[in-house]
Amino acid sequence: MSDTVKYVLSEDRIPRSWYNILADLPEPLPPVLHPGTGQPIGPDDLAPLFPMALIGQEVSTEREIEIPEPVRQIYRQWRPSPLYRARRLEADLDTPAKIYYKYEGVSPAGSHKPNTAVAQAFYNKDAGTKRITTETGAGQWGSSLAYAACLFGIDVDVYMVRVSFEQKPYRKAMMESYGARCVASPSTETQAGRAVLEEHPDSTGSLGIAISEAVEVAAQNEDTKYSLGSVLNHVLLHQTVVGQEALEQMHMAGNYPDILVGCTGGGSNFAGMVNPFLGRQLRGGPKVRVIAVEPAACPSLTRGKYAYDFGDTGHLTPLVKMHTLGSTFVPPGFHAGGLRYHGMAPLVSHLHQLDLIEARAYHQKECFAAGVQFARTEGIVPAPEATHAIKGAIDEAMKCRAAGAGRTILFNMCGHGHFDMQAYSDYFADNLTDQAYDEGELAMALAGLPSVAA
Amino acid sequence: MSDTVKYVLSEDRIPRSWYNILADLPEPLPPVLHPGTGQPIGPDDLAPLFPMALIGQEVSTEREIEIPEPVRQIYRQWRPSPLYRARRLEADLDTPAKIYYKYEGVSPAGSHKPNTAVAQAFYNKDAGTKRITTETGAGQWGSSLAYAACLFGIDVDVYMVRVSFEQKPYRKAMMESYGARCVASPSTETQAGRAVLEEHPDSTGSLGIAISEAVEVAAQNEDTKYSLGSVLNHVLLHQTVVGQEALEQMHMAGNYPDILVGCTGGGSNFAGMVNPFLGRQLRGGPKVRVIAVEPAACPSLTRGKYAYDFGDTGHLTPLVKMHTLGSTFVPPGFHAGGLRYHGMAPLVSHLHQLDLIEARAYHQKECFAAGVQFARTEGIVPAPEATHAIKGAIDEAMKCRAAGAGRTILFNMCGHGHFDMQAYSDYFADNLTDQAYDEGELAMALAGLPSVAA
Repeated sequence: MSDTVKYVLSEDRIPRSWYNILADLPEPLPPVLHPGTGQPIGPDDLAPLFPMALIGQEVSTEREIEIPEPVRQIYRQWRPSPLYRARRLEADLDTPAKIYYKYEGVSPAGSHKPNTAVAQAFYNKDAGTKRITTETGAGQWGSSLAYAACLFGIDVDVYMVRVSFEQKPYRKAMMESYGARCVASPSTETQAGRAVLEEHPDSTGSLGIAISEAVEVAAQNEDTKYSLGSVLNHVLLHQTVVGQEALEQMHMAGNYPDILVGCTGGGSNFAGMVNPFLGRQLRGGPKVRVIAVEPAACPSLTRGKYAYDFGDTGHLTPLVKMHTLGSTFVPPGFHAGGLRYHGMAPLVSHLHQLDLIEARAYHQKECFAAGVQFARTEGIVPAPEATHAIKGAIDEAMKCRAAGAGRTILFNMCGHGHFDMQAYSDYFADNLTDQAYDEGELAMALAGLPSVAA
Repeated sequence: MSDTVKYVLSEDRIPRSWYNILADLPEPLPPVLHPGTGQPIGPDDLAPLFPMALIGQEVSTEREIEIPEPVRQIYRQWRPSPLYRARRLEADLDTPAKIYYKYEGVSPAGSHKPNTAVAQAFYNKDAGTKRITTETGAGQWGSSLAYAACLFGIDVDVYMVRVSFEQKPYRKAMMESYGARCVASPSTETQAGRAVLEEHPDSTGSLGIAISEAVEVAAQNEDTKYSLGSVLNHVLLHQTVVGQEALEQMHMAGNYPDILVGCTGGGSNFAGMVNPFLGRQLRGGPKVRVIAVEPAACPSLTRGKYAYDFGDTGHLTPLVKMHTLGSTFVPPGFHAGGLRYHGMAPLVSHLHQLDLIEARAYHQKECFAAGVQFARTEGIVPAPEATHAIKGAIDEAMKCRAAGAGRTILFNMCGHGHFDMQAYSDYFADNLTDQAYDEGELAMALAGLPSVAA
């Protein structure tokens, strides 16, 4: 009953390079386009927003990109993260499946986000950046960047979606504990924010608006750069430490996953786990079935269009080809704030187009039920985002039970739920709803996609 | 700037026994007395409340008490916990002191509390206990016991101080996630609770009242036992895994502490860290200066009387000799709920009487300032309780700076502050006060101590 099966790597097994799946894909990513000209953009177009090292990583097709030693040094605070076999969950499900999970909640911010925050802070420091702007929804990303930047002595301004700013004061306090400044978005500090407020003085904000604000400030200030917590290639790249460690830990376990499951919002925790496995497969290694799980209320992979779109509401970003619900799509309320984004990482969208991954969507109540089952068997209360991966893994394990198949399932438990207990309170009080998005609104948002020659 | 210095032990270095300092002390503990007879109590008096194995540990004078293998198995979920050198804090303080800290926030509940919760759940399971009752203030202990008990399939009823129950719904949700039942105390479920409510219908509760409720339910039900998260010998004993690991990790670091600092509420995280070091000293090993840091608003060690007192308000517990402010003392409000207890562990009180440790008290605002400095240098936001240890360590490091002395300081960072961000919000908004207790009330509480021949 009480056995813990944990696979621990020594510190010298923290990966020395990030893995770039673009080196192994049969087709390159569609180019990123300038919204004005419709032409592919070059590094110089991005230079106001990002340090050149990160722009280089964004477009690189090298397989291995060396992790700078100062980044590995900070990774050591919590890496390598543990990989567990979920024996008690298996027993509770009475399944012949073997379930493993990688646990990223051991980081100081409680999720996988610091894997890229530390890297981005390092390259910005190296380039002389004095201030970084970013957006945050529920606050996981904002507090992770605040953590990383404070270790490098860089100021951080976080534009936090107003509804979360007001409902989740604890995340704001966390960012302030790390010395960051947290601003409710839309704010009066930017043109983008003021424009929204003029039209909608009571706007509760959105990730798209907050991105516009953060990008605007970075674009207009020499010593200020912008940082994103998911979606972009270099962000997904930094997360591959997760999958690379997991590969080695599965080897320790004497096992290899038949099925990989991850939750997808912007796509970074998912790609960080699965890309190293998919890379092996692409280079002739064992085939693995990969399942992306997304919220039914914001289903970019399962219901979005694969098309060029803006990353933000204010249309300040370049155009990227991705699965998108349209930049004007506003999902109904649900608790997994980290999965509330209208688009999917271009790289994850590309993997889906290439049939390397499949996708499915779940409603939040069934995910919380899975999260509670996980807490009561494995002892860790998962973040609402992570409950989607758990639900996906449990469903696969139950299929194994029905089929009498002892398959091996691995998922990324990307964070703990300590900052999301309100969601659990609501779940236990039966105050959660599985609100569907409005089909008419989705159709309208998709109809409004920019028309560019792809 | 960015170096992480972390000392990691492999899993087989999880201690195989708990260390009992009573074996090495020059004088035994004063006996525990029956409140009715004034005579020392025997194991049978405690049998309605605790399984016999724990009663045996409570009175044992054996030096090493073997840790059952199922307990070690669950410890493996997060143990051995890391020990860090606080290099960035040292640099920020510009001190020649070397500062180390053991980090217990990596447990599933985020603090050191599961070290004893798992052990207590195991022995209760072994004795056939179906339900455990306990009290909790801020909720750290309640959620730790809920975690441990659910792994062993034991029901838990937590009596949570009403003011915390209402102000901290997230801890309640955490306990419920682990399947525990959480009741606001005083409740109508017990005689003790009803008696308080009759006299004070608006009572906001206290730890003392909640203990009375939990003890009453356990005493009256055959299959129900009671569990305490600190104060008692067996609880302190279970925490010695912390200090034993730290001893080995300091050896890895090629260093030995000149000064040990810990925060004290009931005394368990403090004793867990310092007892293995004090034991070495008592057996002829190196001498270490030990500093207990307590809140100035509830200063049992620095302002309490060393006398026999009840552990609860309802006077259902036996009488124990300890530093106490009197069981009727109600401390003013402050955020470190885990340090809000009128008494100090008899064992820690005894160490103080024997001049093996010293004590000092700090106000909460200076502790939060230390906590924020720690977060911004070391990257971990500490629990309000732990900021007291940090403040103590920083003060010692600053004395080293003044003296040009490169002493080695070690403290126990007993938990993260993820559930306490309201306190940080209040601190940043300058809404915290350093409220002093009422001297007249303290004098009255002390005058009301039970009169027994000590």
